[in-house]
Amino acid sequence: MRTNYCGELNKDNIDQTVEICGWVNRRRDHGGVIFLDIRDKRGIAQVVINPDNADFAIAETIRNEFVLKITGTVIARGEGLANPKLASGDIEIVASHIEILNTSKPVPFQIDATDTSEEVRLKYRYLDLRNDAMQKRMRLRSKVTHFMREFMDSHDFLDIETPFLTKATPEGARDYLVPSRTHPGEFFALPQSPQLFKQLLMMSGFERYYQIVKCFRDEDLRADRQPEFTQLDVETSFMNEDEIMKMMEELTRGMFKDAIDVDLGDEFPSITYADAMHLYGVDRPDMRIPMQMTDMDELMQGVDFKVFSGPASSDGSRVAALRVPGGASISRKKIDKYTKYVSIYGAKGLAYIKLNEDGPASPILKFLGDDVTAKVIEMTGAQTGDIIFFGADKTKIVNEALGNLREQLAKDMDLFDKPWAPIWVVDFPMFDENDDGSLSAIHHPFTAPNVDAKTLEETAPTALSRAYDLVINGSEVGGGSIRIHQVEMQQTVLKLLGISDEEAKDKFGFLLDALEYGCPPHGGMAFGLDRLVMIMTGSDSIRDVIAFPKTQTAACLLTDAPAEVPRKVLRELSVQVSLAKKD
Amino acid sequence: MRTNYCGELNKDNIDQTVEICGWVNRRRDHGGVIFLDIRDKRGIAQVVINPDNADFAIAETIRNEFVLKITGTVIARGEGLANPKLASGDIEIVASHIEILNTSKPVPFQIDATDTSEEVRLKYRYLDLRNDAMQKRMRLRSKVTHFMREFMDSHDFLDIETPFLTKATPEGARDYLVPSRTHPGEFFALPQSPQLFKQLLMMSGFERYYQIVKCFRDEDLRADRQPEFTQLDVETSFMNEDEIMKMMEELTRGMFKDAIDVDLGDEFPSITYADAMHLYGVDRPDMRIPMQMTDMDELMQGVDFKVFSGPASSDGSRVAALRVPGGASISRKKIDKYTKYVSIYGAKGLAYIKLNEDGPASPILKFLGDDVTAKVIEMTGAQTGDIIFFGADKTKIVNEALGNLREQLAKDMDLFDKPWAPIWVVDFPMFDENDDGSLSAIHHPFTAPNVDAKTLEETAPTALSRAYDLVINGSEVGGGSIRIHQVEMQQTVLKLLGISDEEAKDKFGFLLDALEYGCPPHGGMAFGLDRLVMIMTGSDSIRDVIAFPKTQTAACLLTDAPAEVPRKVLRELSVQVSLAKKD
Repeated sequence: MRTNYCGELNKDNIDQTVEICGWVNRRRDHGGVIFLDIRDKRGIAQVVINPDNADFAIAETIRNEFVLKITGTVIARGEGLANPKLASGDIEIVASHIEILNTSKPVPFQIDATDTSEEVRLKYRYLDLRNDAMQKRMRLRSKVTHFMREFMDSHDFLDIETPFLTKATPEGARDYLVPSRTHPGEFFALPQSPQLFKQLLMMSGFERYYQIVKCFRDEDLRADRQPEFTQLDVETSFMNEDEIMKMMEELTRGMFKDAIDVDLGDEFPSITYADAMHLYGVDRPDMRIPMQMTDMDELMQGVDFKVFSGPASSDGSRVAALRVPGGASISRKKIDKYTKYVSIYGAKGLAYIKLNEDGPASPILKFLGDDVTAKVIEMTGAQTGDIIFFGADKTKIVNEALGNLREQLAKDMDLFDKPWAPIWVVDFPMFDENDDGSLSAIHHPFTAPNVDAKTLEETAPTALSRAYDLVINGSEVGGGSIRIHQVEMQQTVLKLLGISDEEAKDKFGFLLDALEYGCPPHGGMAFGLDRLVMIMTGSDSIRDVIAFPKTQTAACLLTDAPAEVPRKVLRELSVQVSLAKKD
Repeated sequence: MRTNYCGELNKDNIDQTVEICGWVNRRRDHGGVIFLDIRDKRGIAQVVINPDNADFAIAETIRNEFVLKITGTVIARGEGLANPKLASGDIEIVASHIEILNTSKPVPFQIDATDTSEEVRLKYRYLDLRNDAMQKRMRLRSKVTHFMREFMDSHDFLDIETPFLTKATPEGARDYLVPSRTHPGEFFALPQSPQLFKQLLMMSGFERYYQIVKCFRDEDLRADRQPEFTQLDVETSFMNEDEIMKMMEELTRGMFKDAIDVDLGDEFPSITYADAMHLYGVDRPDMRIPMQMTDMDELMQGVDFKVFSGPASSDGSRVAALRVPGGASISRKKIDKYTKYVSIYGAKGLAYIKLNEDGPASPILKFLGDDVTAKVIEMTGAQTGDIIFFGADKTKIVNEALGNLREQLAKDMDLFDKPWAPIWVVDFPMFDENDDGSLSAIHHPFTAPNVDAKTLEETAPTALSRAYDLVINGSEVGGGSIRIHQVEMQQTVLKLLGISDEEAKDKFGFLLDALEYGCPPHGGMAFGLDRLVMIMTGSDSIRDVIAFPKTQTAACLLTDAPAEVPRKVLRELSVQVSLAKKD
């Protein structure tokens, strides 16, 4: 229906007769002439309709977002009338014929407006998606998955589909359930990940598998979560963690280069989980921020200030300092704000020392004394003009408080020293020790430990796993591990996790069976596509990189899903709604 | 962990030291020497372990399906010992070191057995998938999707994901439902297709969209259906049906060439729905079979044989003949079997005329008389040695009976005159007329008619749509249509289908709204991937082209899904099981 795309017309097309199709982005009337900006997926071109045009009467009825087919001749714009903002800004099309393919009611918001409320944007998503920024994000997303597939295909990975209607697996989050009509009273679960199936594919001898696949978690939603999300899922046999990480690093470097022309550097650094927690307070350190926590335990053990000396001397507690370059200018009011901010993580206060021109200043100087203060300044490397914040509490609280404060300060004060900082986090613990002494899996129960089964039993709470996470700019974009491939080891881990034989057999007996029939050594990784595209596009919300996202209450404002269902339909599924109170 | 793949070792590797990893496909002991066939994803190689090998004691413990890493030297096989069936058959590896990566219990069936029951295969799917045939099918499937993506990407289609947790849409089949925890008493539906979303993407200005996506239908399963299936979903704006069909034809030709090196021919023929039904009795004619039905209505109207003259003279009934070359040799017993076969479709009998050497023979000759018999022979072009079958009943019964009989006979007698026969079926009716005179949509309510709204209202029951199906070898592998893009037309169609404004608004009001904001002319197509791969691989069952399929009762024998769910979990979802009788 068209000879050219609007965005691709330029001086080379002058004097050509062209046919274009697209939407009226804007209409202006000027001196009896109608000017239309016509928009298609490749851009915008200006169309001129002179009063002597046979279709002028038609043109007069045209409003924004009408869909038109226009035939016309490309001419150069008059002297000084070029629009450098448009690729087609040097030319315009003098229309000879106009066909209205469809009309449009007045739109509820201008397509290129940036101040539309998200609720309205989501309700009229088909209009919001016409916005140039949304179009670009969707194009970039498509480009990223294209690159992923090219890379995986060229490395001989097979794209294999795993089931969506499957069994609840122990991933930690709540499952979305699907009642079965043919098996009354029974339910499928939507997969939280294809974890067990990809391991089964290794046991099936495929050796290299990948899939870009939707996964589902019925979690309480945060800003960057969606009930359905997409991951690049990878698994391979006969490779160790170094080989897998190297290959996944190459993939990551490639996609950043291909999609947004960013060079992530030759070899990603790596950090142990222990160091990440100790230095940055989080297991996903943002390495763009040139600030580290400094451990103060030894220094503070002897001070006559219980707030510090207590945690400094106790197991499971710590005192740490965070030096913020240029932070002496932070106002009292802002410090109060940060004090409130760290209280989210359980911190009971936020002690600080400012290094003013006239020397250190702080309500706590009198408790620390000059020597300790001088030592703090020396240890943190603080300079005049800086501020030093302190955390002193249970280790978890200090880490979370100072770790998040570090990132908040970096945002507020623009304390980033590079635009991109990937890092591998390795040597994760196998287990989380619960308050009652029981153990939970940090990743999932199929992650291999880095010791043999006997040593694992002896060292369980502190044993490390063969897991690895890839963090970019403080976001975990991917993670994986070498999996357990021997049944004895799997049984040991399940025993340590307090999962009974019966429960294990019921939930994933098929996997335990499969381990006994020649399971190869294997491992893999999964990348969160939404998160990756979010980082690449600098989007604030995960909803901006998904064509039809859900709100934070897991609803679709466009289609009004979820919705009530006729009782007859539910009866066929042998379920009924029961709105009794939850326990 | 390896230097080479088993299947890739050959004479060029002689004298090289290699490391291979894989499964023990077979172990033989011969003259004190152990021979192992080691299998990896690229094939099989023979390993020799001599008695003087330091690992010989280890080797003696090795059984089938153990996973090994073997270091050894490649040597030429002795004179006359080459195995031409193996790519690596000219060489063998003399092992120097053997590492058992994992053991295996005795497997419940030999990996390369072909007589294993499907139930056992599905339960131990991870063993079944090690079979060379299953590996090849999965590889082919991956190759097909790879080609599809390359094609769509290169034609500037954007890969955009649509939601899985969405709203019930009117596709005709039952929906799989998902209870919502955050919206108690409400349900998501899993998509039967992304139909409405892909149309919304056109309204969003993406112009060209594709997705390879899982769809869900809770239907009573037939041999070639699965509750979850995969389709290549395509939609484009500003193209008419000829342009879309041409492009999809190029895609189809390309994927057959790329995946199985088959040339489907330069331009696919097309046939109208009416002709397909009239000549082949089905809307998905298998054009490999050089047999057509011959209409006998006019000839039989006057005969003194009510079984024929009745249907020949009545509206909505017909008499048709099917000439089967070489069919005179079909035994009486077999004819009885075919008579029973057509009774499935409601035929009350199966009249025939055999053209034996000594002339026509049939119980009905006496009713037809010589002249009519001669005319039948002339009209069908039958020769000595053929048989002519008759159908005489309601048109639907005759078409289904003779249409399916034609295909059954072709299979039984190998009456195919070409290996591949694609054909477009076009000019479908818009509507099916129900017994009560109401209308149903043949495709879906968003399919555009090939007339304007006013004409449609006047000619509704017989109006044709702008839909097209692609049929290969008698299977519908894809279908699509130009969609309605104007709200008045959509309202007219919904009215004709008896869908009230309220129901329409409730079910897809968002689409009706979107039609009013500048919806471009658009259309598209969907290919059934499972069906396509089934045809390409010559598989008998759709389960053979899916890694982890469901049974005909929609269950997974491997994972035992679906399964019961703790009541507490259901309570969180505000549903409960109610096993009361269905109404």
